[in-house]
Amino acid sequence: MFLFACSVEAQSDSVFIRKMANEIFQHSTAYSNLYTLTKIIGPRLTGSPQTYISEKWASDALKQAGADHVYFQKAVVTHWVRGDKDQAALLSGNSRQNLHVIALGSSVSTKEGGITAPMVLIHDFDELEKRKNDIKGKIVFYNHPFDVDYVWVFMSYMMAVPYRVEGASRAAKYGAVGVLVRSMSSSTDNFPHTGALSYNDSFPKIPALAVGLQDADKLAAAASAQNDLRLFISTNAHTLPDTIAHNVIGEWTGSVHPDQFITVGGHLDSWDPGEGASDDGTGCVQSIEVLRSLKSIGYIPKHTIRFVLFADEENHGRGGSAYASEAKAKNEQHIFALESDGGGFTPRGFMFKGKDAQMLSVRPFLPLLVPYGITEFNMPGGSGPDVELLTDSIGILSAELVPDSQRYFDYHHAANDVFENVNKRELELGAINMAALIYLVDKNNP
Amino acid sequence: MFLFACSVEAQSDSVFIRKMANEIFQHSTAYSNLYTLTKIIGPRLTGSPQTYISEKWASDALKQAGADHVYFQKAVVTHWVRGDKDQAALLSGNSRQNLHVIALGSSVSTKEGGITAPMVLIHDFDELEKRKNDIKGKIVFYNHPFDVDYVWVFMSYMMAVPYRVEGASRAAKYGAVGVLVRSMSSSTDNFPHTGALSYNDSFPKIPALAVGLQDADKLAAAASAQNDLRLFISTNAHTLPDTIAHNVIGEWTGSVHPDQFITVGGHLDSWDPGEGASDDGTGCVQSIEVLRSLKSIGYIPKHTIRFVLFADEENHGRGGSAYASEAKAKNEQHIFALESDGGGFTPRGFMFKGKDAQMLSVRPFLPLLVPYGITEFNMPGGSGPDVELLTDSIGILSAELVPDSQRYFDYHHAANDVFENVNKRELELGAINMAALIYLVDKNNP
Repeated sequence: MFLFACSVEAQSDSVFIRKMANEIFQHSTAYSNLYTLTKIIGPRLTGSPQTYISEKWASDALKQAGADHVYFQKAVVTHWVRGDKDQAALLSGNSRQNLHVIALGSSVSTKEGGITAPMVLIHDFDELEKRKNDIKGKIVFYNHPFDVDYVWVFMSYMMAVPYRVEGASRAAKYGAVGVLVRSMSSSTDNFPHTGALSYNDSFPKIPALAVGLQDADKLAAAASAQNDLRLFISTNAHTLPDTIAHNVIGEWTGSVHPDQFITVGGHLDSWDPGEGASDDGTGCVQSIEVLRSLKSIGYIPKHTIRFVLFADEENHGRGGSAYASEAKAKNEQHIFALESDGGGFTPRGFMFKGKDAQMLSVRPFLPLLVPYGITEFNMPGGSGPDVELLTDSIGILSAELVPDSQRYFDYHHAANDVFENVNKRELELGAINMAALIYLVDKNNP
Repeated sequence: MFLFACSVEAQSDSVFIRKMANEIFQHSTAYSNLYTLTKIIGPRLTGSPQTYISEKWASDALKQAGADHVYFQKAVVTHWVRGDKDQAALLSGNSRQNLHVIALGSSVSTKEGGITAPMVLIHDFDELEKRKNDIKGKIVFYNHPFDVDYVWVFMSYMMAVPYRVEGASRAAKYGAVGVLVRSMSSSTDNFPHTGALSYNDSFPKIPALAVGLQDADKLAAAASAQNDLRLFISTNAHTLPDTIAHNVIGEWTGSVHPDQFITVGGHLDSWDPGEGASDDGTGCVQSIEVLRSLKSIGYIPKHTIRFVLFADEENHGRGGSAYASEAKAKNEQHIFALESDGGGFTPRGFMFKGKDAQMLSVRPFLPLLVPYGITEFNMPGGSGPDVELLTDSIGILSAELVPDSQRYFDYHHAANDVFENVNKRELELGAINMAALIYLVDKNNP
């Protein structure tokens, strides 16, 4: 009898999800919203004018999609600006070869007119330690390769990213005057990929730039042929006083438990060389589409669902922190939180952060998502960068959509992270699975 | 004891497949081969000069990859040529709006200077039957929508493609003088998508063209606003006398059963508006990569593995027919055949055609492919268009790689089926799974 009830229940869920999938495939506004966010508004570096233009847009889009009310939540954010065009060149005797570079987020400027210094090629931090007496006064070129063997490319990224984040201070410790970092990508082009660095206050802050892969290979080849190479680097990146940005929050009030919250979101800010399409315009428009589609087919949520477009994920994650802090300070009752920040590619799974018992509560939903391409629920140690802070602060289960990762780092933080590199159906398929998971969590919680 | 042996066996298989995956991710020539095939050679319409240039290239590439010997297998093929640029326009009073069109494969020409006739908008064959007295002397515009609700987009294609294949003759039966067919795609652009039609010899052969989706929508909107619309169509597509093309076959001789064959391949021909990248340059270079990678890591096959680049899949499938006919006529012993003709996108599964008992023999391999993104083995009724003829003629199990299908019909038979729309890692991940399946079948057959 119980089994029969469960099976009827699962059947009605599968019918509901199919109806919602059709609604999204046929009438989604995710792709047109993404067009506006990327092509009309453009990149949304924290503190830039586009920050506030996109906040206004997000508020309007959430209202349009059916939010009961929309409000802004303040976050104090650092305000880093790139300034003029970043430059670098390889100098050898009288020859000069310009390089495709971009300053890393939070980087300080070089002195006016740039810096020229001998280049020292370093493959990893072990080699840096061995050659620590050979670093002083030089520009360190970290040429740590992106490991292509991982099928889930985020693993390759996690193995390489310490060179971007810590490389500057670790080189400054031994007297380096600047660093150039091989881009964290295995793409076939030469776009440099930016991203945040983190200075260690114990050492001088030195300028740091990323270099495109083809140029990185040229530098390595040049270094193996001769050892009197110099690098020129120039950036006037700098940090202005802290400013205010906002999480834009749309609420859809719960019919049974209006004071209990389910969160779904993406981050509204982005890096500046491209349009912030896959990172994370797609997560924003998918979240808005979850609201629009569920509302369009007449769903009535039991709990209040919050659609949150987070500020400042890329620089210091202050939007996510503000949201989690306020949830804790106000003793809010949260049930679940989901983020999409892995790109608008075909969905493959969801990853979760929480306790094993919490994971068991969602595991039965997996078979319902298989027809839409989700084949894995796993717990690799993290979830969405903004929502996992809720797991840390108030102990709820959080999750992130896991799209296919093969193309993500071709575009990540680079000039080709543009609208054209997002596919409409792949984007929609992600929204379908997000909406299905939110529906299942809402409906199956008392 | 037996279970232990199986588990050790599976472990050694998983180690072998991991090694092969690394070989492909690090050293694959699939992407550079695809560059040559698409950018240097270009589209390969059956009977065109590129047919023979690509056959020579394929022979060289197979030798380079390590084939013991390479030979050509003749196929008598029809020789259809497009001629000058295909044209169409919507005429209304004195206004003329040009349309993005392309003649369908096998289409006859219009008379010199084109045809102008009243347009009749038809949504499906039922409507055609109802309006059969309203067709005579007109140009039928089939505006059958591509059903976007299927997650596996090949289903949408299979539902729409009868309008391209049969539409001309079914309209000619009622006196139509030409047809325009909505492209079989749900893309966001206006590229017309060609593909083969098939004339029914009982009715006059009338010219048939595909129209881009945006223009199809414009035609539909115009038709709903007024009913005196005329269409102009012009093509000098025509069919020349039959000619000869070739399957290019590279053999890697089996160490135990040199007279037993495993086939892996793709088709070398393509449609002409793009570069034949996803359809099916990717299948060709993946097949060559299976050979190169297995050989590179020292595998010794038990059975002879044939790498077959088939001729004429797009027009009449005469390459696949020639291969299957010769296998039957010579009473060859075949074990298994695999094709890749679904694009070089991230692999999701394999589909098989054969008997249930044959399917059971490969089912245990699925868990070994899961780490590389394969989560499904299924039997939807067909496999690869060339290799499934072996199932029909000599009863063996055949298979096709099933990549993610979201993007395939954005490019299919259109001007944007180009190298740039193939991702290196996705292409390689397909080759990895093909090589793994071929390895497992070879090793596990006596």
